[in-house]
Amino acid sequence: MPHIDVGNDAPGILGLMRFRPETADPLNALAEALLRAPGAPGSLSRGERELIAAYVSRGNDCTFCTNGHSELAAQQLDGGMSAVRRVLDDHDFSALSEKLAALLTVADLVRRGGREVTAEAVATARKAGATDVELHDTVLIAAAFCMYNRYVDGLATRLPDDPAGYRGNAAHVIERGYGG
Amino acid sequence: MPHIDVGNDAPGILGLMRFRPETADPLNALAEALLRAPGAPGSLSRGERELIAAYVSRGNDCTFCTNGHSELAAQQLDGGMSAVRRVLDDHDFSALSEKLAALLTVADLVRRGGREVTAEAVATARKAGATDVELHDTVLIAAAFCMYNRYVDGLATRLPDDPAGYRGNAAHVIERGYGG
Repeated sequence: MPHIDVGNDAPGILGLMRFRPETADPLNALAEALLRAPGAPGSLSRGERELIAAYVSRGNDCTFCTNGHSELAAQQLDGGMSAVRRVLDDHDFSALSEKLAALLTVADLVRRGGREVTAEAVATARKAGATDVELHDTVLIAAAFCMYNRYVDGLATRLPDDPAGYRGNAAHVIERGYGG
Repeated sequence: MPHIDVGNDAPGILGLMRFRPETADPLNALAEALLRAPGAPGSLSRGERELIAAYVSRGNDCTFCTNGHSELAAQQLDGGMSAVRRVLDDHDFSALSEKLAALLTVADLVRRGGREVTAEAVATARKAGATDVELHDTVLIAAAFCMYNRYVDGLATRLPDDPAGYRGNAAHVIERGYGG
């Protein structure tokens, strides 16, 4: 049972955002800047950034965010959901670029705690071609999902009745943006 | 040594925000909405909300955020820094209202993980007078500091050379707001 009455039927973070629009706006703007804004040429694609979000959410055992961002990654990555599942379920990074694999490793360290990130993990990502901005954004995506995940589960929000809701919501975000 | 070159001398999150203004704006707007916006009459004061932020930051062992938000709490709470230290160093909540003590307990559970928050901890806060909005905001403050703390430490940002910098920065935020 949810810990608070949000006064609407929307699942997960969507219900919280309708309950408290004052905080929904910056939360959506942050997701938009990190996950959807165009990056520099050759930098992480939208699908790759969503994969980092989904991977961190899975590590934090947040069902709503894992399912939602897995859909967002699958709909924007070559390989679709089976590529996402290989990373999340099997921790198999072999089909990914060396850079993305190294950044996922950094993201998982951030998830465990800010002080867990080692100079060695950063050096490995850098050697694989990661820039300062990509390292910055990977750390902040991982940190931000440590927030979103705790927000969704810390208030015990409900899951969608129909899992197809994740697909529809992902398609909406891809077209209109976070909060669009 | 910092993990990335932010190209400026500002410590902690301040240097990261100058490096990446695209994400600084929503991060500041979120802090403003959670910690500084006026609440309903009788709801958590600015000083009380900063105390929650400082307590979570201490739990996450983030020196920059603990020191910064301890100053922000001390400058806005009766009892000043000694009241803050009693809570952070000694986990002594006896001088606080029953409501704030119960909300700090909820915040610490959120810090450990979203699924750690129990119906019992929520019921205790509610019995002490916490509203749905106060429970929501407490969970989101705790979750947000799990982000800010990981952002600051995950990139191994530097501390200010002079600890007096925390006091000056806190006074600036109190007067002008986050990002002001």
